[in-house]
Amino acid sequence: MGAVVSKERRGETAAREASIAPLVALVGADMEKVNALILDMAGSNADMIPEIARHLIDSGGKRLRPMLTIAAARAFGYEGDGHVKLAAAVEFMHTATLLHDDVVDESEMRRGKLAARMLWGNQASVLVGDYLLGQAFRTMVEVGSLDALRVLSEAASVIAEGEVMQLAAAKNLATDETAYLGVINAKTAALFKAACEVGPIVAGRDADTIAALARYGTELGYAFQLVDDALDYGGSSMTLGKKVGDDFREGKVTLPVILANRAGNEADRAFWSRTIERGEIADGDLEHAIELLRRTGAIAATVERARGFGVRAVEALAAVPASAHRDALEDVVAYCVSRVS
Amino acid sequence: MGAVVSKERRGETAAREASIAPLVALVGADMEKVNALILDMAGSNADMIPEIARHLIDSGGKRLRPMLTIAAARAFGYEGDGHVKLAAAVEFMHTATLLHDDVVDESEMRRGKLAARMLWGNQASVLVGDYLLGQAFRTMVEVGSLDALRVLSEAASVIAEGEVMQLAAAKNLATDETAYLGVINAKTAALFKAACEVGPIVAGRDADTIAALARYGTELGYAFQLVDDALDYGGSSMTLGKKVGDDFREGKVTLPVILANRAGNEADRAFWSRTIERGEIADGDLEHAIELLRRTGAIAATVERARGFGVRAVEALAAVPASAHRDALEDVVAYCVSRVS
Repeated sequence: MGAVVSKERRGETAAREASIAPLVALVGADMEKVNALILDMAGSNADMIPEIARHLIDSGGKRLRPMLTIAAARAFGYEGDGHVKLAAAVEFMHTATLLHDDVVDESEMRRGKLAARMLWGNQASVLVGDYLLGQAFRTMVEVGSLDALRVLSEAASVIAEGEVMQLAAAKNLATDETAYLGVINAKTAALFKAACEVGPIVAGRDADTIAALARYGTELGYAFQLVDDALDYGGSSMTLGKKVGDDFREGKVTLPVILANRAGNEADRAFWSRTIERGEIADGDLEHAIELLRRTGAIAATVERARGFGVRAVEALAAVPASAHRDALEDVVAYCVSRVS
Repeated sequence: MGAVVSKERRGETAAREASIAPLVALVGADMEKVNALILDMAGSNADMIPEIARHLIDSGGKRLRPMLTIAAARAFGYEGDGHVKLAAAVEFMHTATLLHDDVVDESEMRRGKLAARMLWGNQASVLVGDYLLGQAFRTMVEVGSLDALRVLSEAASVIAEGEVMQLAAAKNLATDETAYLGVINAKTAALFKAACEVGPIVAGRDADTIAALARYGTELGYAFQLVDDALDYGGSSMTLGKKVGDDFREGKVTLPVILANRAGNEADRAFWSRTIERGEIADGDLEHAIELLRRTGAIAATVERARGFGVRAVEALAAVPASAHRDALEDVVAYCVSRVS
């Protein structure tokens, strides 16, 4: 396992294994408990709830966020079962967000399968999302840590606020890089942050250590989202589990588009205005968008920014004592950034 | 104030004032704090959030649920500020539910105004509802009572589960009275229960007292919802803040319809099947529905059941020491049931 090989850490991100395999192996036993708890939490006498929950749960998501919670608790020697409950709650918060996002974005696909709303309708997707969020809070309360509850309830608010900000910024090319980073801090980085922060909290660590893990999660979340943005214009649909160009077709103003629009000539800006702002998309437009993104260096610049966040995520891990779990958390950073080149 | 006049209580519901005026007067000072906190919690840099929240908050809802929380804490001599936070959280949970309900039911009106989704869209209504729910949990966590958090997070799950059950039962005349009471227990009584239960919890009372207030809230919630169901076919739109017949037009199977369908002749059942199940509604159908509900005694029977729940709500108050707050809680029962005759 790569996690055991490397002894020196700082500044060696490139040398570490760009894989989540070490993490998956380390947290495997705990994640079995998380998965069992998730199935239990998705139970209900209202048949649609377990049906929809299983549709999402069985759809092959990586479960990166709950794995981070498990690793961030175990890295501090935690031996209780609170981390399993918090991890399951984090995954339910994420799943609830996906259900509502697909309704808001009118998405047809999710992780390579039909979105729940295409099978059960928008109404059921809204209500089952609410149920999963309620179940997430019930499970958190069982852990009995007010600090963990504070972190996760704040994340729930911030995520929703980020989605509202994204909705308001939708189809608006005047969104600048700073505003966009604010959106992804809220809609993505906040849950990565909370998922990591509750690890040292449940393990009873001090405020500085908790802040370090919060920083690791935040930086990783930024890197993860920016890579996702780049992949939407360059990854294969095999990798993504969604069609390439989803963001483009939904008129989402992401960092690649912001950078390409800023660097483009008049004709380019007219193209982005027609497609993203006015939603007038014809055959060949996605290909032209990808060509513009490559010509202006917007994809490369987006990936470069993701790498910067990744470096800072690894730096934050200096607060974590040497262990296989700490190494695995470092590998996650390399993995996230390496998904795109 | 009627609350001070009557000294003897049990079995005297009819003699008590059918008004929430005593409650409003008693909790007025605390409710000013609740209202200030609600405005604070609805703040956000995402402009749509305070706009939508204020649209609902300023729309003249009675704020019955948070008033119950305040009274149920004060009735036990509580002097802290936790009840104000819990009351605001309860109102936010309710407001979030309204936002999502209107999306799910495709409602056009709410409390006599255009529903938020008609002004800001379904997308914003879903996301702002999520934000309000997140803010509710943040506020609850500040109180620091894990017992209150357990009660309210369980309510959040149960409410959503009830909404899913109602969605599944929609337009289905095979729904029987027992199944329907299960739906309203979840979608309405659960929040009344939690709103009342957290009062003695925050006041540090024993399990029996907490259970008694939980029972009071549950029974009151049933009574409240059944009266609402009856009013939808008989109240004036002035009273309701929504058009009479909303449930009918949305194909909602409520207790009046269940009872009328069961007691009706073949032609009646064909009428309910066409209108409620198939949604084929023509001019004059609402008037005919109201006529059938009156002829079969379905409205009277629904109100009679509501009265039964009201009696049990008052019985549960035996666990509360004599006080103006206790009297006001009793008056709420009479008020709820007296909204319809």
